[in-house]
Amino acid sequence: MLSPPTQRIRLPIGVRDFLPQAAARRRSIAERLLAEFERWGFERIITPLFECADVLERGLGADARAAAIRFVEPQTGEVVALRPDITPQVARLVATRLAEVGGPVRLCYEGAVARLATGARGQREILQAGVELYGAGSPEGDAEAVSVAAAALATAGLPDVRLEVGHVALARHALDAVDNEEQRAALAVALLRKDRAGVARAAAGLARPLRILLEALPGLYGEPRAVLGQARALRLPGAVRRAVDSVEEVLDSLEEVALPLVVDLGEVRGFDYYTGIRLAGYVPGAGDAVLAGGRYDELAARYGRAARAIGFAIDVEALAEAQSAASVPMPARADGVLVAAPRARRREAGKLAAALRAAGARAAVDLGVLRGRRALLDYAIKAGFSRVVELSPRGAFWLEEGGEVRAIAPGALRRALAGDVTAMGGH
Amino acid sequence: MLSPPTQRIRLPIGVRDFLPQAAARRRSIAERLLAEFERWGFERIITPLFECADVLERGLGADARAAAIRFVEPQTGEVVALRPDITPQVARLVATRLAEVGGPVRLCYEGAVARLATGARGQREILQAGVELYGAGSPEGDAEAVSVAAAALATAGLPDVRLEVGHVALARHALDAVDNEEQRAALAVALLRKDRAGVARAAAGLARPLRILLEALPGLYGEPRAVLGQARALRLPGAVRRAVDSVEEVLDSLEEVALPLVVDLGEVRGFDYYTGIRLAGYVPGAGDAVLAGGRYDELAARYGRAARAIGFAIDVEALAEAQSAASVPMPARADGVLVAAPRARRREAGKLAAALRAAGARAAVDLGVLRGRRALLDYAIKAGFSRVVELSPRGAFWLEEGGEVRAIAPGALRRALAGDVTAMGGH
Repeated sequence: MLSPPTQRIRLPIGVRDFLPQAAARRRSIAERLLAEFERWGFERIITPLFECADVLERGLGADARAAAIRFVEPQTGEVVALRPDITPQVARLVATRLAEVGGPVRLCYEGAVARLATGARGQREILQAGVELYGAGSPEGDAEAVSVAAAALATAGLPDVRLEVGHVALARHALDAVDNEEQRAALAVALLRKDRAGVARAAAGLARPLRILLEALPGLYGEPRAVLGQARALRLPGAVRRAVDSVEEVLDSLEEVALPLVVDLGEVRGFDYYTGIRLAGYVPGAGDAVLAGGRYDELAARYGRAARAIGFAIDVEALAEAQSAASVPMPARADGVLVAAPRARRREAGKLAAALRAAGARAAVDLGVLRGRRALLDYAIKAGFSRVVELSPRGAFWLEEGGEVRAIAPGALRRALAGDVTAMGGH
Repeated sequence: MLSPPTQRIRLPIGVRDFLPQAAARRRSIAERLLAEFERWGFERIITPLFECADVLERGLGADARAAAIRFVEPQTGEVVALRPDITPQVARLVATRLAEVGGPVRLCYEGAVARLATGARGQREILQAGVELYGAGSPEGDAEAVSVAAAALATAGLPDVRLEVGHVALARHALDAVDNEEQRAALAVALLRKDRAGVARAAAGLARPLRILLEALPGLYGEPRAVLGQARALRLPGAVRRAVDSVEEVLDSLEEVALPLVVDLGEVRGFDYYTGIRLAGYVPGAGDAVLAGGRYDELAARYGRAARAIGFAIDVEALAEAQSAASVPMPARADGVLVAAPRARRREAGKLAAALRAAGARAAVDLGVLRGRRALLDYAIKAGFSRVVELSPRGAFWLEEGGEVRAIAPGALRRALAGDVTAMGGH
């Protein structure tokens, strides 16, 4: 049954393994995010890894639809897709099984999504954690989403995190007024890059008020009050002005926010998806947003229910990389003790490990090949333990990281074997 | 951009969503399993959802290989497979990136696996949690795996859980001695069903000692000492006798085990995979094993490294269903409070929710349509909150499940808005 190892041992492009240290950081980030979401009243749900492609794609924006990994499910012949996003799955649930809840629905999730596009850092499998708030409009639903986003990002313990609050209305209004498709596309690209000179070039020939608005968009970014003031100085139609007002209302109704906020009224992405404010979170060193979301009041309707909605997802891997880059310490965990003993003392070693576990430590027994203390400690640290108790013919000893050796008194060992590890010291 | 909802909203066969209550039970089970694994010194890793099919399949047994969902990854044209099991991924890691650890390696994981075969309860996506112990032989590695398996299953709080310790050697020896392929297949089926009459029929014509052994196998199941005694009374070749002795050694070297153990020496499954003891855990009401594993000392070699190994995986969904059937209470969680207020009092409501959160509660603000108290409480409970604070023109009130209404004194509300919720009562 053994296949000869002719093919190289490799992983597909864009997927990876996480060894214990890396995994611990990612789990800790995800768990803190979920705990924060739950504190704000969001309830965790679990959705499937793959779905019928036509159902899933109903709820995807153009980008995510292009990135979906589709395949024919061999047993049924049905075309399925790995979820490139959890948001449409939540929309489906809210429109179907949760349709009878008579008020706002707060849901959160954590899990892997898979995408064709290599995207951020070339990854195809991305661990995400996010929230969805259904049935709450603007400004209160928007303000809640901004608050939760800020509180969630703050749990990562990173310096210089910033949260951008944008709105699709201004850029959408301006681009909709451009009749020529090529010109519109050129403008969208320049706006995306916040390239003022590029916008000015691409806006040549347009009516003056429209040109002024387009050229102003890349600058509508920065300190909230200043940006809102600039926007209000522009000549905007009523609906767009109301969008600017709504951003101000959202900012006004925030209680203390855990992070500095920036306003971006030149936001141009996600036109086929978002219908109101946009959220984007950034950390130093990561070019792409680590948090992305906004209002998508038309999403649930794709699954048959009219419901306002706002939500966002956080890229756990991007936060983990930012934590590493910023030397944020690894999550604390229980003391790890390896109890090393010759085979003849395995019962004693087992009892000691059990007593250590009962006292809250992580503990395992090593009856392996007899090794020198140096080698034993080296191995223990590689295997995830910070210290070793050596039961040897000469007595019992603590071997500490760094090489310190301390004897454990026979009385203390007897007490430990009877279940009381306090006298063993080292805690 | 809206696709008309022509196709029915549906999920692929064998996958499902978990709403908050169901998700909470499954998360709680998985987290308790992982915490137990970690207490025993196993370190958590994260592996990808899909891999190159040829790499993944090297480490799969025949059943899992047949169940793997393969597809062509559209971007590279490479054939990949959704992992039907996490065990081969861990073997790959141990043989490659962890090859330099100079002693036993203890790893654990939690995650979804996907399988074609509808298998247990028709599911294709199965949430698993498991451990892998590399570099430890029998009996100490086996004894450790049995202890961890028992301790892990015990965390589910289920009555009547049992752990079976088997060994592949007896049935393998007996079947290997049967020359006729058809007869061997018929015997394997009868042994699998522990069908004594079927075994006797299928064993007709075989040499008497072999017939006696085959007919004894279905009965080699039950109380450990009794089964081991029966096995030792059989005429067995040296290697098989040593396998029986090794099971006894394992049982002898166990400290207190959290669950009743059963020995099964007629075990016939997984011949292409397992090389020593087998583990199987059962709970009332689930026909299939909720825990399955054993020793696979040849697995890591498929990835280029000789290393002894034992491990097991637990089906989280099966435990969740058993918990529901046995009315095991839902995991405790923080008190959930919905603060309902008219829009004019949204600042006050926000402050109160923040103070409740700071005091450890889950809290959200509801500025929704004004509703009667009955409707408000109904909604709150459906949305995951156990209680409501109503800020109304008549004052502040606790609305409790069951319909009780208690006024909150104005002084207590003032103190709560300043951050001290203790005087608000209801805790």
